[in-house]
Amino acid sequence: MKKIINRASDFVEESIEGLVKSHPDVYSFAPDNKRVIIRTEKSSNKVGLVTGGGSGHLPVFTGYVGKGLLDACAIGSVFASPSVEQITSGIRNANNGNGVLCILGNYGGDVMNFEMACEIASSEGIKTKTVIVADDIASASSEEKLKRRGIAGMIFVFKVAGSVAETGASLEKTFEVASLVNSNIRTLGIALSPCILPEAGKPTFDIKEDEIEIGMGIHGEPGIKREKLRDADQIIDDLCKRILDDFKLNANDQISIMINSLGATPLEELYIASRRVNENLSKLKVKITKSYVGRYATSMEMAGMSITVFKLNDELKKYLLSSSECPFWNN
Amino acid sequence: MKKIINRASDFVEESIEGLVKSHPDVYSFAPDNKRVIIRTEKSSNKVGLVTGGGSGHLPVFTGYVGKGLLDACAIGSVFASPSVEQITSGIRNANNGNGVLCILGNYGGDVMNFEMACEIASSEGIKTKTVIVADDIASASSEEKLKRRGIAGMIFVFKVAGSVAETGASLEKTFEVASLVNSNIRTLGIALSPCILPEAGKPTFDIKEDEIEIGMGIHGEPGIKREKLRDADQIIDDLCKRILDDFKLNANDQISIMINSLGATPLEELYIASRRVNENLSKLKVKITKSYVGRYATSMEMAGMSITVFKLNDELKKYLLSSSECPFWNN
Repeated sequence: MKKIINRASDFVEESIEGLVKSHPDVYSFAPDNKRVIIRTEKSSNKVGLVTGGGSGHLPVFTGYVGKGLLDACAIGSVFASPSVEQITSGIRNANNGNGVLCILGNYGGDVMNFEMACEIASSEGIKTKTVIVADDIASASSEEKLKRRGIAGMIFVFKVAGSVAETGASLEKTFEVASLVNSNIRTLGIALSPCILPEAGKPTFDIKEDEIEIGMGIHGEPGIKREKLRDADQIIDDLCKRILDDFKLNANDQISIMINSLGATPLEELYIASRRVNENLSKLKVKITKSYVGRYATSMEMAGMSITVFKLNDELKKYLLSSSECPFWNN
Repeated sequence: MKKIINRASDFVEESIEGLVKSHPDVYSFAPDNKRVIIRTEKSSNKVGLVTGGGSGHLPVFTGYVGKGLLDACAIGSVFASPSVEQITSGIRNANNGNGVLCILGNYGGDVMNFEMACEIASSEGIKTKTVIVADDIASASSEEKLKRRGIAGMIFVFKVAGSVAETGASLEKTFEVASLVNSNIRTLGIALSPCILPEAGKPTFDIKEDEIEIGMGIHGEPGIKREKLRDADQIIDDLCKRILDDFKLNANDQISIMINSLGATPLEELYIASRRVNENLSKLKVKITKSYVGRYATSMEMAGMSITVFKLNDELKKYLLSSSECPFWNN
């Protein structure tokens, strides 16, 4: 295992500590929990936004704490859910008396622990609502959309909900807009190579040197299909077709696109992919408001990428493009 | 070779095309040359800033074209210099009658081709000046500083020079400030694994599973020393010591830091490194104005990272923190 780390058991703590030391104006430790990150400049009169999940996906989840984005994040171990205690601390710290919206990916442990934390918060008089992001079309059919996992599309939910909350909107309004984003995103990706969990010290899965897997999850969950590596254009055409089969787009629809690297896949390859995604979508005469190309939701050094399509309306577009302060989001 | 590409010979063209299609508001093709990228919103009354170099280092070089940054970039093939013709096109396109500052890394082919392009430009009445960035302390001793290669520190030169030019400063003033940045940056890195050039199809160098190389260049140029992989803290302490031996810092000096991934090395590891860099520097009681942690100058999917220290004064700090518009720079 070739990583720039100290003891594998310190991997999460040390990387969070580095995040806080590197960007002290953005991120701080919660006063009561070292596995909870809050905004350094706490807001005082808005709905609080909380997320949480396993480590190993930076910038997801912690990176998206910041003005115009999230208020607190509960941080689990690598690829493991944060505890109920950590999530509850996140909710308490994010709460200003206007209620808290929890936004999380659709993973069993996360969902269960957030549910329990929300119950505790409720018993303390904190009103909460929850949006469970489910954008990965490979993980369940459209009939069972609620079973889908949350992947890179989650960042669009963070960003838009963050902008809505910043306007002073109510918990109900923030929940409503965040839920609309959740139903307007579709993501599909491919994996080329595994990552190595620091404490396990070995690859999360095996894949042959000439193979890719379509729809593999960011923790190595099985995808739709394993196949031979083909030309980028063929792969992208296939991914686009599958997304568009699931999500009908019409001429003049406004969309935003995210081309996300799972880690090792470099920008050059992402742009080769983005070029083809743009060609495919322009045939539909949709209007692409803005493309985001880079590392937004990763699995450490895993190679692979995903395409997210986010269907906008004028309101969502305004929120998407409004300002925020975070090292990982470029307005 | 496991890459998301089409024909290897189309790698550069297709990735540039993707960049332009993904961010049409920022990047455009020069009207006269498909290997030159210019700002979409051309400026009309400032010194033009031009860079250029080989492909395979995104966001370097092309990514840093944008408002408050560069005006044009000449794009070579992977790890190869752009041609004199391409660079000359970049200079012509960046020129508004106020002269052009060329900023490039200290690589033989780049230096020679920029020199010839500047001569052609001069014969056409375009005044140019050139800053050759030389921040890599592993590539030559401090006595032979002018022989050093340019690596991640280059981005600080782009950013500050870009801000200066945006104020309407003269070519002389922009050159003077950019030169000061160049003398105030020091970078040192390590390589963990090679990248694969698309057309060659094989790794750029061999390195054992338990080895790292200190000071290896971003094209695989030999470094100072090959050694066993150690704990992150030991590696970082060694890199910091070598940088500080070369570059004396005193209490209350203002600095900015860049912790740069060569590609595959994930943010988690960069933050473990950044944590230790911050600890080492805080012992000196220097003031860290801002840390940049991410992929700024890469070698595609190469694993490894570098530390850049940039010594500021009040003027440089102001320019560093002023606004710019580019998908790869967060103000």
